[in-house]
Amino acid sequence: MNADTPAGYERTVDWNGDDVLAIDQTLLPHDEVVLRLHDVEALAEAIRSLRIRGAMALGVAGGLGIALAVRRAQEQGEDVIGATQKAAATLLRTRPTAVNLARGIEHVLAALEGGADAAVEAAIMLIGTDVSTNRAIAEAGADFVSTVLFAARHSELVVLTHCNAGALASVDVGTALGIVGALHRRGRVLEAIACETRPLLQGARLTCFELARMDIPCSLVVDSAAAGLITRGDVDLVVVGADRIAANGDVANKVGTLSHALACQHAGVPFVVAAPETTIDAGCPSGADVPIEERSAEEVLEFAGARTAPGGVRARNPAFDVTPAALVTAIVTERRVIRPAAGERPGP
Amino acid sequence: MNADTPAGYERTVDWNGDDVLAIDQTLLPHDEVVLRLHDVEALAEAIRSLRIRGAMALGVAGGLGIALAVRRAQEQGEDVIGATQKAAATLLRTRPTAVNLARGIEHVLAALEGGADAAVEAAIMLIGTDVSTNRAIAEAGADFVSTVLFAARHSELVVLTHCNAGALASVDVGTALGIVGALHRRGRVLEAIACETRPLLQGARLTCFELARMDIPCSLVVDSAAAGLITRGDVDLVVVGADRIAANGDVANKVGTLSHALACQHAGVPFVVAAPETTIDAGCPSGADVPIEERSAEEVLEFAGARTAPGGVRARNPAFDVTPAALVTAIVTERRVIRPAAGERPGP
Repeated sequence: MNADTPAGYERTVDWNGDDVLAIDQTLLPHDEVVLRLHDVEALAEAIRSLRIRGAMALGVAGGLGIALAVRRAQEQGEDVIGATQKAAATLLRTRPTAVNLARGIEHVLAALEGGADAAVEAAIMLIGTDVSTNRAIAEAGADFVSTVLFAARHSELVVLTHCNAGALASVDVGTALGIVGALHRRGRVLEAIACETRPLLQGARLTCFELARMDIPCSLVVDSAAAGLITRGDVDLVVVGADRIAANGDVANKVGTLSHALACQHAGVPFVVAAPETTIDAGCPSGADVPIEERSAEEVLEFAGARTAPGGVRARNPAFDVTPAALVTAIVTERRVIRPAAGERPGP
Repeated sequence: MNADTPAGYERTVDWNGDDVLAIDQTLLPHDEVVLRLHDVEALAEAIRSLRIRGAMALGVAGGLGIALAVRRAQEQGEDVIGATQKAAATLLRTRPTAVNLARGIEHVLAALEGGADAAVEAAIMLIGTDVSTNRAIAEAGADFVSTVLFAARHSELVVLTHCNAGALASVDVGTALGIVGALHRRGRVLEAIACETRPLLQGARLTCFELARMDIPCSLVVDSAAAGLITRGDVDLVVVGADRIAANGDVANKVGTLSHALACQHAGVPFVVAAPETTIDAGCPSGADVPIEERSAEEVLEFAGARTAPGGVRARNPAFDVTPAALVTAIVTERRVIRPAAGERPGP
């Protein structure tokens, strides 16, 4: 247990000087198991299978993956540059939509110019940067919600979120859940509503777990119940994370996010995206340019190993969707609040 | 097996002269079990637990429930009027949102004025009426889609549906799936996309099962993937059933329907509702007046008996949502096509 992490558990992703340590998120909430990942292949498997997941956590994991490659190459007397290039290619193939993964990898590869040890140090520093970025987003988001969106209204808010953009999606307090936690500490949260997030139930398993640890009253709903709750006035605010934000403000996030944004627009409820600056992809003009990861059909056809659909049925399983900028009230980063629905662009 | 039912199985709800027969829909697609329900309590349990479900099937089941009460009262020398009043109260409490249940009950209660046998005959006639109504909706819907919505376009369509508004939701071919089946027979269906329909997976279990029996290519998706598919142009048409339609054209249907309608409006995709005239509730001015059934939290917190959320978490479980008339391209009944988005009202 690490007293610094508000939710009371170890850091989601960490470095012990030789290995990557990571909480196995597929086993939560029932079992808390810390994985010790000694090589890039083990790390890549952990990312592919979502043992490690979440935009910011993937950024740190990508950077630490290069550090792993450096250390293993040094031990075996192999070429460090070649090993890290190979590691980068392996890791980049695991999750195509999440831009932070590529950012973490590129950051540490660039540091290799200063030598192998400089690269490992740069990777380790990603952990600390993630912590400070998380906390800045949480406070900036809570400020924005309290003093801009709900300045005239002092009652407690019902806040709905999707998937998990909490401590488990990063190293520290998270992005969207960081804002919810900061609002809670200011006495502004009546209840958090967590959407279960099919097919892998990150909302039910991870977000409810984090909200319970923060003592925030929490209700779980199926994803498709959110629109009804939003349009009938049961939700004051929706806050989600992001996996990639295009230059025009379109937001790629976990599949299901778009439905919430459409309901918010219909009902006049603010829709806020919380993400670090590194999630904004200046090289990506719009959401149409974001590659959408298609995951295994089995995630949809089966549940906990039991088949729910009849044999022979196919499934489509896009892991993300794109919310157009016009539906996004605000993007809160560690440096600024961008208002895409009002025409502001996060990118050049 | 009944060769008359296109999907190849027994009638969903039937009468054997003494008992109600019903396919247990909670066991599909893995087991096909026909329940023999001998008294009103057994029927009410079957409705509450969704062994019998679907707007039109509930209408027939409600009427047959009164017939059951008549026959049991006669056998035991009890007062038929008192027994049927008690049966009506018991059955009406099972599912508050579905208006057809009340309609079926009221229809048979009214026939009691002609005597006990007349009431039983009226209940049995509901089965035949349901069959002819289903077929009329299917053909009218297919006509409307082919000659109005897609008159200028002769390619095959990708049709998305939610929950199960098929043969299993009625006695015969169903409402929304009846239209899909009729379009398929006309060579107009490229693919049907079934939303799984959390929490109880009627889409995965029942709609995929029916589509496979009709030899219609079918893809299963999680409910929250629909909005992304619709907005990126992968869906030509959405067709759903309804549990109650208000006089102004607002449509109460299985939770999740509203999200699809919002995505359709955003993308300019037609959103069509298929239902019999009996689903239109002239006494209900708007969707705000429809009682929304709240089902057990366990349906959300557990899956196949295994708990997915951490202990202590609450859940909200509204079984239905309301789609505003402005989002409804058309309501197809056995008698007419109403265009709520263009300002037409189904009710007085």
